[in-house]
Amino acid sequence: MRREPEQLVVTAASRAALTRIWIGPGLLDAAGERLFSPSGRFLIVSPPAAAAARDRIARALAGRILANVALDDREEAKTLAAVSRIADAAFAAGLRRDDAIVAVGGGVTSDVAGFAASVLLRGVAWNAVPTTTGAMCDAAIGGKTGVDHAAGKNLIGAFHPPRAVLIDPEAAAGLPDRDFRAGLVEAFKAAWVADAGLASRAAASIDRILAREEQALLSLIAGAARIKAEIVASDPREENGRRRLLNFGHTLGHALEAAGGYRDLRHGEAVAWGIAAALEISARRSRLPKSDADAVRGTLARLGPFPEPVRDAARLEAYLQRDKKASAAGTSAVLLEGIGRGRVEEAVPASEWLSAAAIMSFK
Amino acid sequence: MRREPEQLVVTAASRAALTRIWIGPGLLDAAGERLFSPSGRFLIVSPPAAAAARDRIARALAGRILANVALDDREEAKTLAAVSRIADAAFAAGLRRDDAIVAVGGGVTSDVAGFAASVLLRGVAWNAVPTTTGAMCDAAIGGKTGVDHAAGKNLIGAFHPPRAVLIDPEAAAGLPDRDFRAGLVEAFKAAWVADAGLASRAAASIDRILAREEQALLSLIAGAARIKAEIVASDPREENGRRRLLNFGHTLGHALEAAGGYRDLRHGEAVAWGIAAALEISARRSRLPKSDADAVRGTLARLGPFPEPVRDAARLEAYLQRDKKASAAGTSAVLLEGIGRGRVEEAVPASEWLSAAAIMSFK
Repeated sequence: MRREPEQLVVTAASRAALTRIWIGPGLLDAAGERLFSPSGRFLIVSPPAAAAARDRIARALAGRILANVALDDREEAKTLAAVSRIADAAFAAGLRRDDAIVAVGGGVTSDVAGFAASVLLRGVAWNAVPTTTGAMCDAAIGGKTGVDHAAGKNLIGAFHPPRAVLIDPEAAAGLPDRDFRAGLVEAFKAAWVADAGLASRAAASIDRILAREEQALLSLIAGAARIKAEIVASDPREENGRRRLLNFGHTLGHALEAAGGYRDLRHGEAVAWGIAAALEISARRSRLPKSDADAVRGTLARLGPFPEPVRDAARLEAYLQRDKKASAAGTSAVLLEGIGRGRVEEAVPASEWLSAAAIMSFK
Repeated sequence: MRREPEQLVVTAASRAALTRIWIGPGLLDAAGERLFSPSGRFLIVSPPAAAAARDRIARALAGRILANVALDDREEAKTLAAVSRIADAAFAAGLRRDDAIVAVGGGVTSDVAGFAASVLLRGVAWNAVPTTTGAMCDAAIGGKTGVDHAAGKNLIGAFHPPRAVLIDPEAAAGLPDRDFRAGLVEAFKAAWVADAGLASRAAASIDRILAREEQALLSLIAGAARIKAEIVASDPREENGRRRLLNFGHTLGHALEAAGGYRDLRHGEAVAWGIAAALEISARRSRLPKSDADAVRGTLARLGPFPEPVRDAARLEAYLQRDKKASAAGTSAVLLEGIGRGRVEEAVPASEWLSAAAIMSFK
């Protein structure tokens, strides 16, 4: 017996920014009723790796597809040129203002296709069908879209929330294990900053989650998606600070990812190391109990092993300074006071991050 | 004795969309107090033709300028690549989220620089200092920003209103006469659809306006800016139809401009021809009195002469179909019921536009 899909609704300032998030197995085949388009017509954007999910979406939308646009979803291809290519295909297919885009893929796909939706014809509606654990728990939700620039990641973009997000665990069926595990770091991250109960339940069922047992996996993903949706609804444009809680692990994580040339570490792996470093700083600045820090490290160790990152202070420092939130006094950081209780510290000096990077571990 | 600058405030749904429009002589030298930047720092974007105004702005902002970015403001250079070049310069100069852009130039400059402001770091504030009559009355006001695509004009963009607009007639001092006159078509257009009193006063002082007498010119520009600001405030994202009144003359105008390869006709000149065609259709569909149509044609004749456009139905038809507002039934059109009374007609068949194009004139 199948459960009905769960629906989360993210409310926002304007009706055009309302996101409906659907979670459950079988949604790929129900896309015809769940995806949003004022005209009923869709432009599908997806990378080769998401072909299986895209084919099911395409069958569900038969007769209503303007075009299928192939996207190179490697981080190095996440540029304005990719938006330009989507524009070429969209206008060749006759895109109108009342048509909608569907992004079927991981975080790069939803970032690029969502940004294209925000600028084509000054804004068309879009939908996300995430096919990676990272996109299901994090990237596809919240409306941050954009592309990279030589000076840094996500420096060109827009806030443009999808109208519908379909989270079907079957869409991640073909995901390589390394990516599957790395993506779950974002799910636990959400629990650690905001929901001790979810963190505890998910840690207790980690073996079943890693074996991809549907109920255990759905429970974690739905919990993480709910946290992100709730936080985003309270701070859609990252103006009052609450949304910054979701950056837990990302300050040093972004620097580690960049220092590895975006090849050595998956995004989730870099965030895992960034969390390990934040635990060191949290012990000192936020009196994080050692038992809580050990529990977080224990879960990260189960999600790993993760490749060893760059720890060299001289190499990391330049990347830390580039953080969008950097100021002369340091970089704002998300620390833990305990599991489920994150807080933002305004200016942690780079030297503290570099000291933490030297000793961070999952043991 | 100098008058104090006039200030118009365009109210909008959110505080971030509030535009202050300042109108008066001497504003170029008062930019330090009138332009908006949360950090106090500015990135100036301007084409070579606007160098004189840019130099005065730069002196007024001395010590607060991140970089001066040169823009190629020809219509054929209004592409995503231009946005990319602004991004390169902005990030090389260390642009932060609380910095602001200043666009000093004509309509292409405010379109491109405003669009760059909307996407850099997911949105920074911007200001417009128009240096052409067209931009003063129309392009710099209202928040429509964007670039062209091979498939058509302004197909990639965003709604991102400037925080301040400085309209100083001295900024247009070096404008060639042909551009000066073409830009005023947009000012009269605003009066014809919404303000019979302004239309009548401006027509009576047309000789002084064309001689660039400050009071007569300012009166027309301020009136047109006020109409545009009022209409935009009532329909910021072109959702309830009122804003479409400002497209008077633009349905056929865009097709004429495209058919001329964006070289043969200035935008305002193409709009003048488009208005002449709309008068023909208005006579039939909106009972526009012949005396009113003759008054409009008479004013346009004084603003001209304008180059002869493409009138060939076969060549124009393809461009008419590409209109963003085109549907199977035809293209929505703005017609006049009388001077000062525009209205939107939902679907005027292409054949009517093509017949009007064959006979349109300013006599």
